[in-house]
Parts: sequence; C-alpha cells; structure tokens
Amino acid sequence: MRLSQYFLPTLRDNPSEAQIVSHRLMLRAGMIRQSSAGIYSWLPLGFRVLQKVEQIVREEQDRAGAQELLMPTIQPAELWKESGRYDDYGKEMLRITDRHEREMLFGPTNEELITEIFRASVKTYRDLPKNLYHIQWKFRDEVRPRFGVMRGREFLMKDNYSFDVDAAGARHSYNKMFLAYLRTFARMGLKAIPMRADTGPIGGDLSHEFQILADTGESAVYVDKNFLDVDLLNINVDYDDREAVQKAVDGFTSFYAATDEKHDTAQGEKLGDRLVSARGIEVGHIFYFGTKYSAPLKANVAGPNGETITVEMGSYGIGVSRLVGAIIEASHDASGIIWPDSVAPFDIGLVNLRSGDAKCDAAANDLYAKLQKAGKAVLYDDRGDSAGAKFATMDLIGLPWQAVIGPRGVAAGKVEIKRRATGEKLELATDDAVAKLIG
Amino acid sequence: MRLSQYFLPTLRDNPSEAQIVSHRLMLRAGMIRQSSAGIYSWLPLGFRVLQKVEQIVREEQDRAGAQELLMPTIQPAELWKESGRYDDYGKEMLRITDRHEREMLFGPTNEELITEIFRASVKTYRDLPKNLYHIQWKFRDEVRPRFGVMRGREFLMKDNYSFDVDAAGARHSYNKMFLAYLRTFARMGLKAIPMRADTGPIGGDLSHEFQILADTGESAVYVDKNFLDVDLLNINVDYDDREAVQKAVDGFTSFYAATDEKHDTAQGEKLGDRLVSARGIEVGHIFYFGTKYSAPLKANVAGPNGETITVEMGSYGIGVSRLVGAIIEASHDASGIIWPDSVAPFDIGLVNLRSGDAKCDAAANDLYAKLQKAGKAVLYDDRGDSAGAKFATMDLIGLPWQAVIGPRGVAAGKVEIKRRATGEKLELATDDAVAKLIG
Repeated sequence: MRLSQYFLPTLRDNPSEAQIVSHRLMLRAGMIRQSSAGIYSWLPLGFRVLQKVEQIVREEQDRAGAQELLMPTIQPAELWKESGRYDDYGKEMLRITDRHEREMLFGPTNEELITEIFRASVKTYRDLPKNLYHIQWKFRDEVRPRFGVMRGREFLMKDNYSFDVDAAGARHSYNKMFLAYLRTFARMGLKAIPMRADTGPIGGDLSHEFQILADTGESAVYVDKNFLDVDLLNINVDYDDREAVQKAVDGFTSFYAATDEKHDTAQGEKLGDRLVSARGIEVGHIFYFGTKYSAPLKANVAGPNGETITVEMGSYGIGVSRLVGAIIEASHDASGIIWPDSVAPFDIGLVNLRSGDAKCDAAANDLYAKLQKAGKAVLYDDRGDSAGAKFATMDLIGLPWQAVIGPRGVAAGKVEIKRRATGEKLELATDDAVAKLIG
Repeated sequence: MRLSQYFLPTLRDNPSEAQIVSHRLMLRAGMIRQSSAGIYSWLPLGFRVLQKVEQIVREEQDRAGAQELLMPTIQPAELWKESGRYDDYGKEMLRITDRHEREMLFGPTNEELITEIFRASVKTYRDLPKNLYHIQWKFRDEVRPRFGVMRGREFLMKDNYSFDVDAAGARHSYNKMFLAYLRTFARMGLKAIPMRADTGPIGGDLSHEFQILADTGESAVYVDKNFLDVDLLNINVDYDDREAVQKAVDGFTSFYAATDEKHDTAQGEKLGDRLVSARGIEVGHIFYFGTKYSAPLKANVAGPNGETITVEMGSYGIGVSRLVGAIIEASHDASGIIWPDSVAPFDIGLVNLRSGDAKCDAAANDLYAKLQKAGKAVLYDDRGDSAGAKFATMDLIGLPWQAVIGPRGVAAGKVEIKRRATGEKLELATDDAVAKLIG
C-alpha cells in the first residue's frame, strides 16, 4: 500500500483525552476514532490489527475443536428473564424497545442465547461434547468508559460455550480452553498469566482469568517469577488426551499467581524474592459453571438409558478489541508502538527518503515489488515529506521492519533496514536486504 | 470435519413459518436459527457460507482500491440531526437511549458517520480520491420482517463511500464500483443485472440497483435477453483508466433493463421477443449523490489555490447476508441447495455408506485425509445413519461434490463421485477420484 493513497490520519500531538499510552498511540497512529463515549471506529490501520488478532483467536479455537457460528447483537429480553439475569445486569445492559414495543437488548454476553440454540437442536448424549464460539460485537453501557478500546462500551469479544454430558467432560473442555488461551496470547507476543478468579455475574465453581503484565494494568497482581520463564509458545499437548491435558493445566497452575482480591500474603511471602508484584490487564476469562444456565433454560439431553441429563456448561471469553490496546501497553517505547510480527498491520515500512528523485523512486518501486511478490505486506511511504517526518511516522505506527531507500544508498546499491523492536540497523545490498526481510 | 462431531441441526420437515425456498432450505439445512422476528443466528454451516460471500465482496472492494475500516453499530443521534435524516428515517430506525439518557441508534447505514470521520481527517484535495468501506451488521426495524435472511432486521451489509474533488472524479468512483459489483456477483455464480433506480432516502442524481433473477424475487423486472448472454466473469478493465471504465459501464447500461417502477412499456415493446419479463431480487445498490451529505456536514477540503471544495460523494451497498438467501433462490432443486463452488461451505461431502465396517472406514479415512491434504474442505459423514438419510442430507446441504464409499466400491477399489449441480455420477479408481475432486 502506498502511503500517498492510504487513509492514515496520524496526529502529531498527544490527544488530551487519552490517559493511557495505548489510547494515545492508537489515536496518534490513526488506528481508531471515537464516535461517542466508549464507541470507536477502527480506521484501516487499526482494523488490520484487529483482524490479525481475531484470526489468531479463531485459529486456536478451531485447533481446540470449537466450532464457529455467529449470534446476533440484538437479543430478546424474554430469554434473560428465563435465566433470571435480566434484572441482575442492571444499567450496564443496553435495553432497547422495538417498534412493536418488544423488549430487546444489545447482548453483553451470550450464555442464554447459545443455550437456547443448543436446547432446540441437541437431544441426545451422543451429540456431546460440543463447543461453540463466535466473535461478535458486544455492548456494555459502562458508566465511565475510558482508556480507549481497553474499556469501551461497544467491543469485540470471542466467547464460547461448552456442553458436556458430565462434570469430568466439562472439566476437560475447560482445560482445553485453558491451554488454547495460553497459546493464543503467546502467539500475539504476550505472556498471559492464568490466575484463579472470582466468577462474578457469570457464576460457577471454577474460573481463571488471564492477565498480562503492563505498568498501566487495572489490577495489582502477584506472580511467581519462575512462571515468567516458562515457554508458552510450545504447548503441544494432544487435546484428546484428557490426562495429559489435565497434567499440563496442573503444571501451569502450580505457580503462585493471584490478583489483589485473591492474594494470600502468607503464601506470597514464602516465595521470597521470587514474588513479582506488578500490574495486570485482563485479556481472557474462563468459567466452569455446571448447570447454572442449563437447568433454568432446560438444556437437557437423553442419556444412554433414556434418562434426562442436564448438560454441564462452561463459558470462555477473550476481549479481542481490548487485546489490541493490551498489546500496545505491553509493547511500545517513547517513539511509538512496537508490533509483534504476528499482529503487525504491515510487515515492512518502506521509506523513500527522496520521493520524486528518479533513481530513488526506481529503487523503491523495485524493492516494493519484490517484497510484495514474496507475500509481504508493505506500507510504502512515497510522500514528499521530510526524512524526519517519515521516520517519526514509521516509528509511531511500529511496523516490525523498516527499509530505507536514499540517494547515498542507491548510489552504493544498498538498502538500510531497521528492526523496530531493537533499533538495530543494517546496511545491505538490495538482494540481501530482500532476503533478510523475507526471513 | 466429521459430521458425527459437527453442529449441523438439520430438519426433516419443512418449517411452517418459511414462505420462500431459501428460508425453508436454510432452516432445514441447519444454517440459521431465528432468535426474534427477523433476527437470526448463523449456525456453523451457514456461517461458513456467509464468510465466503463476505470474502468475495472484500476482495473485489480491495481490487477496486477501496480501503476497509470498521464503524461501530451504535451511532450518536446528533450526527443524524446534523444531516437532517434523524426524523426522515421513521420507525425503521432502532432508537436507543443509553444510561445517561443520550439518544443513540443502531446504524441502518453510515453516510453520516463516515462523513464525520472524513471531515475530521482529510483537509486537502491532495488526499483525494478516497473510497472507504466496511462490512458490518446493520439494523432496520422492518414492520413485518419475513423471508428469512432476505428481509431480516439485523443484517450484514458491505457499504462504502467515495470522496472526490469533483463530479468527474466522483463519476469514475461510481463507475469502478459498478464494475466491481458485476465482478462480485459473477464470482458467486450470479448474473446480476444493473438497472437504473430511484435514489430513495439516500438521495442523489444517479443510481443503479443490481437485480438477480429468481422466481421468488420481490419485484417485477424487464431485461433484454442479450444481456443474459454477456460474460460478466471477465471484466478486466484497468480501473485507473477513466475512459475505458466509462466505456465498459456504457456497454453494460446499453442493454434495456428496468424494474417495474421504471419500466417504459414502449421501449420494452421495441425489443420484441428479446424482452424478458421476470422477477428480481435486489442484491446491491449504488448511488452518486454529490454534496447531499458533505454540504450539511461540512466535509470540505482545501483546493490547489486554497479555495474550499465541498467533496463529491457516492455510496455503495451490498447485502451480504441477503446474498446467501439470494444465491439459494437462484440455485436449488427439489432436493435442496446447489452451492456454486465459490461460496460452498465445504467443497466435498464424503459419504461412508457403512460406517463401522473396517474396510469402508479405512477407505473413507484414507480419502478424507488425501482430500484434506490437497487443501479441500471436506464434510465427512461418518455417522451410523442409513444410506438414504446420508444422501438426503448431502443433497439438502448442496456441497458441489459428493464422494461415496461403499462395500461394493471398496471391493473393486472404486469411489463413486457425484456432481451435485448436474447429478452426473462417475465411478473411478480412488486415485482418479482424488484427481478429479482436487480439480
């Protein structure tokens, strides 16, 4: 994509309304624009990141055997009255009356609706287990939306729901999601720490939240330093092997990790200087809640002997739009964002230091074509701006690699490439630069 | 995907509430489930089709130089008061009051919001033209939602908006979308006929709607038979060549084509027996409306001499979720759906006639593995049902190819493959069957 044609409305100055760094950088990098309090449009650069994050979430759900569907945003109030949560949810639920005076709502979560779909379709234990997910916009009418996409009102969430015939099966479904979540976050360059959590309005017996460490995190968290050294990128347990899956989960939960609410000072002290005290951002939350929804909503199946079985359920959420902010909180410097390769909106930023100069243009066009041909997504700054402005924009938007074409380099047949994360620069012959960037 | 594990709640009987064939077949094939009047969940099979349709729309938008972003579903009422449309829209607009008593709405379209984004970001003619699109759920509170996803209340739409410095540029943007739409629909196996249209509540000077022919179409349409023979799959005009683009559009609009409202009986009669009178389903609509929104919303840029230019706009819509129903209306038989290859939820349905038989299972597993390895999406019916039930399900869900493994074939080293669209059957040696199915 040529920057001269791209819709990338960057801002030079820090927007005064943004209190945290991800919000500031997303506004400055032209990733989002607020339309109402806590409601954002995702501009092209931001939308590309959102899609990448969404795709990683999707792939890990599919890999764990979950099946994707899509429920609507607008739900009927009756279902929530059936489960008893219509009143519980209070003012955070966006309530709507349609033209026929029917009570509707913009879904803040989907336990009721998925249970209704399940009960209408699945009648026998033979069809279990099932794990159904969707990635859909939700709405929670926060009283004070803030921090950009980190605590917005309209937000993109992956939520899924497991249905099992018994508690042991439900535990296995829970465990698979536990591991899938660690893999998901690791692929985005995040070290997410699972912590025992309260179940809150979802309810249930067992729950973990996944926190990533960032100075601007909303909660104080405590974690055994040794967990931070665990390699989460290589979780390759066979999901069909219940024992191996349980063992892997037990391994990860054996490290001490707790949010403020659950922190046990005595246990923490035992760790001595292995106790890391930090701030955390919640990026995922998983729940096993048994029959809390299946019982009132009558999600039953016939068992092997014709008996009625109320299915055992769990639900699992990842804040997809929130993750975009969380990744920035965890990965930035004074100059801007530092995207992990896996979620970067483009792989390479190509800077032409002298757009309009025939030799520089030819060299830049050539490099642009070669990188694109190799399947790389390239953002090519072909505008007439100063070198300083171009470098500042590239650092701000944080693409993993920068490739710089200038008159001196062109004369010498060289390209300068820079790794955004480390600042490391290399001057290479064009073909070597291409090889390095293609990786 | 093994059908024994897949969430595919097919129905044996015709649902009484469904009046048209696409609605009936989508319910029977387990593609959708209604949660409220005109509001549907897309179950896994339906969701796969929706994604394929969406991806074709996306690719053709990108190819035509449009850039993707994503605007939220919930919009502030103020913007619509600025444009003067807040009252115009009447009861079809789903109006919402948030917890702070602010007036909001669920967007039925996005002219206002995109114009606000544009005016805040683009200040000079040098940044034009721009064409921005998104694919997002919309809501129109139809008084009598019906026909399943064909006239639902919550629906997925691709809408985009072009911004140009003058009328000639705006016309070129319009023309590119005109061609992109023909390509888009052709790739889905649809022959969409562009027809001069009224501009309705969007307003403007120039508008075409794209109608596909189907017996259950909502409007009467008239078209020159010769248009139906035009090859729409090979529109390869250089989008940057204004004249060539205009010439191509003029070519397509030279054929007589009109909806009932615009039909000119005298002109129609001139065609003699070349006049086809049929029913049409609208799948797209494009508008050039000049400064209708940019003027009240003050979307201005500075011109070359510092003068203020009010940008010229157009908007362009494709009903993505509606297309899924429209494709079925255009492509089905008495046994079920006939998916065009490009949008089929799976490429191949693999039927094991004797699941549980060691030799049949081995042959089916082998074929399943080979087809998947070749990148094909395969739905493998490994259940214990009767042959008749399995064939009926495969015909109902309409995958382009069926591959049948049975004891007789296994003994002879043969696989029977069937093309769903034609019913043509071939008995082939396994490797030949694989080669044929891989294509």
